[in-house]
Amino acid sequence: MQKSEKKGLVIVHTGNGKGKTTAALGMAFRALGHGFSVLMVQFIKGSWKYGELESAKKFENFKLVPMGRGFVPTDGSVADEDRQAASRALAYAREQMKAYDMVILDEVNYAVTFGLLDEAAVLTVIDEKPPATHLILTGRNAGQSVIDRADLVTEMREIKHPYQQGIKAQRGVEF
Amino acid sequence: MQKSEKKGLVIVHTGNGKGKTTAALGMAFRALGHGFSVLMVQFIKGSWKYGELESAKKFENFKLVPMGRGFVPTDGSVADEDRQAASRALAYAREQMKAYDMVILDEVNYAVTFGLLDEAAVLTVIDEKPPATHLILTGRNAGQSVIDRADLVTEMREIKHPYQQGIKAQRGVEF
Repeated sequence: MQKSEKKGLVIVHTGNGKGKTTAALGMAFRALGHGFSVLMVQFIKGSWKYGELESAKKFENFKLVPMGRGFVPTDGSVADEDRQAASRALAYAREQMKAYDMVILDEVNYAVTFGLLDEAAVLTVIDEKPPATHLILTGRNAGQSVIDRADLVTEMREIKHPYQQGIKAQRGVEF
Repeated sequence: MQKSEKKGLVIVHTGNGKGKTTAALGMAFRALGHGFSVLMVQFIKGSWKYGELESAKKFENFKLVPMGRGFVPTDGSVADEDRQAASRALAYAREQMKAYDMVILDEVNYAVTFGLLDEAAVLTVIDEKPPATHLILTGRNAGQSVIDRADLVTEMREIKHPYQQGIKAQRGVEF
């Protein structure tokens, strides 16, 4: 394969359904099998569960960095601490991305939606992406300018959810 | 946690977008972190790539069984060998599923769509699922009676695909 064919993709998983973070984990799993190094930065605390944190320990090249706070918007207000945590997470990813083959900004779209991050700052990270690095942005409500810059965009749509049937969250699936 | 709260879910990943198999892999990754045993049976050859096969080797409890043939329907005809391979894969999953905490029937919906499997046979497997086992069915065009039996259904919709921009498949992402 010619070197010139190696192009890092900008990938977006958005939509109201499940599977956005989970599919990013699956991509990490695939990339790690190739010996790629993967960095996953968390923008909203609680998006990662026990299961993946345990499995990730098997891979030396998989770095998970939980930097977000447990931000749950109820009244529309955003605390300075939440904004600062999100900005630190993005600055960290921006600084580190050249050292990784794949970088996942988990729930970053959600962080933009709720005013924790400026979209312009996220666009800067996309624009500065090293050519061979794959960059994955997850979270509902991905902005149009993020989508415009992406190579691959998938919308995960919720068709049916167990909560609708009164079923509790199940170990090994939802946590 | 009371034993009675443990309910295995029937989960469907369908739609024309990427991420159906990948999100199932991510679910396997999460479940394995809990010490769950996972069986993934492949109905269409070629849906699994080098990356995940390598990563899967790290997990003793993750069994991947590639039983499908490289079926690509061009003229609408289905060879007996293809039908037999799909039926063997389904019979294997049906027989083995009681020994696993999570069973993934990868591309099974696609196999039904192309006449490799009768939908009735797939419904039987769903109906016979042990109560605590999670059963995941992937593939586009999931049938309505499969959806009716599911607890969690997500449609992966393609919004943008790199092929549209003339970008070749990239190692670590698509294979």
